[in-house]
Amino acid sequence: MLKVEHIGIAVKDLESSNMLFQTLFNSRHYKIESVDSEHVNTSFFKIGETKIELLEATDPDSAIAKFIEKRGEGIHHIAYEVADIHSEMERLSREGFTLLNDKPKKGADNKLVCFLHPKSTNGVLIELCQEITSDV
Amino acid sequence: MLKVEHIGIAVKDLESSNMLFQTLFNSRHYKIESVDSEHVNTSFFKIGETKIELLEATDPDSAIAKFIEKRGEGIHHIAYEVADIHSEMERLSREGFTLLNDKPKKGADNKLVCFLHPKSTNGVLIELCQEITSDV
Repeated sequence: MLKVEHIGIAVKDLESSNMLFQTLFNSRHYKIESVDSEHVNTSFFKIGETKIELLEATDPDSAIAKFIEKRGEGIHHIAYEVADIHSEMERLSREGFTLLNDKPKKGADNKLVCFLHPKSTNGVLIELCQEITSDV
Repeated sequence: MLKVEHIGIAVKDLESSNMLFQTLFNSRHYKIESVDSEHVNTSFFKIGETKIELLEATDPDSAIAKFIEKRGEGIHHIAYEVADIHSEMERLSREGFTLLNDKPKKGADNKLVCFLHPKSTNGVLIELCQEITSDV
């Protein structure tokens, strides 16, 4: 795994959380993006080589809405950038980790992504991601 | 804030979690350290510029033991490296964030650290840290 690509944080209200993290980081978010397939609005900050992705649910049945209902606002997942998502998925599946999707799917921020179930990773929801280029 | 210095993950058993994250990352932890003041044993992995710090409680009354009792294993905190922890603490206190200590204290991995209460940061326990050098 190459780096911590981003850390996803579940928030109730994107606008007010944007203001809060802007003050915390003393820098402005650089992008707002809606990901219809995940029913979220997202906002991105950059700290060093890692992005902080705020996630607001747009649907009460979405994973983020359910997470907040159960645990409140807070850190939702850690995303690691990998060089080859297909081979990493194969390796981790072989090692006994539970993949939440069989094939990489399109995520926010022009990425192919795959999630690992937290039951197999000490309670940490982990995302593998790889930038989509003309080669992928 | 300069980078995500580390991500702290609360685990029940450091030895078995070390094996698990070693398999996940396909790389070996590079350090084991006990921090008596925090009642934890820690283990460090490096992914890009960020460390992953596994935290095992050594005392049932410690913050990590209580976290696991309440929420189970999982992501405990995010630590951001800052250039000057004293001025960042002053700035964030002025901005209304709740600091959990008045002065920087000695943390793991040769750092001066200060925590921000998650109630003021969207449920995210945040650590500020600065490497201890002869100047600090």
